Amino acid sequence: MEPRAINFKDKLATFSEHWSPKVIAEMNNYQFKLVKVQGEFAWHDHPDTDEVFIVISGNLEIEFRDSTVSLGPGEMYVVPKGVEHKPKSQQECEILLVEPRGVVNTGDVDGELTAENNVWI
Amino acid sequence: MEPRAINFKDKLATFSEHWSPKVIAEMNNYQFKLVKVQGEFAWHDHPDTDEVFIVISGNLEIEFRDSTVSLGPGEMYVVPKGVEHKPKSQQECEILLVEPRGVVNTGDVDGELTAENNVWI
Repeated sequence: MEPRAINFKDKLATFSEHWSPKVIAEMNNYQFKLVKVQGEFAWHDHPDTDEVFIVISGNLEIEFRDSTVSLGPGEMYVVPKGVEHKPKSQQECEILLVEPRGVVNTGDVDGELTAENNVWI
Repeated sequence: MEPRAINFKDKLATFSEHWSPKVIAEMNNYQFKLVKVQGEFAWHDHPDTDEVFIVISGNLEIEFRDSTVSLGPGEMYVVPKGVEHKPKSQQECEILLVEPRGVVNTGDVDGELTAENNVWI
């Protein structure tokens, strides 16, 4: 069978819920996850790892305790490990996340926004 | 100072040479690199790591010994570690690579296409 590329738009068309990352690929022990977001997420951090956000469509703000970064399509940001952050977006925004396998979306803050981990599409 | 997003188009506008990856970000010990390619690269593999290709513009073919994968904008592919591959593109193609810090573009095949490593833009 010929190998096939992973198409972000095709994968994004397969789900609609917000704040629920879906794994589309693994590189070594890292995962690439697509997520749709809208509204405000919970404050959290990831004590053991940096986290990469790449915006595919829409606009994302990542709020820190002392500043905010704004990302549009074709832009990325690396949130350093241990840094508290709160992603938010007024309109729906589609994001590619890169982080180690096993990272939970809400970090060490368990709550209603905590998504099931390691869901592949 | 307010943190700033990393904009792929802005970064790509700062160089023109082909097959010479430029680092734009690090996550833990992994690097995100932009590269412009045109023509055919050398057959090579990376014995110790997978390698991620994400196409930003143009079209890329990754030839394997027994098959080929074609990628357009908004598509990605993970080349498994140890698998020989030869990227090629008739027209110029802009790519985001993700791989561990220290990976050389030609793997264990040193030649005229071997680029200086760890060049940041």
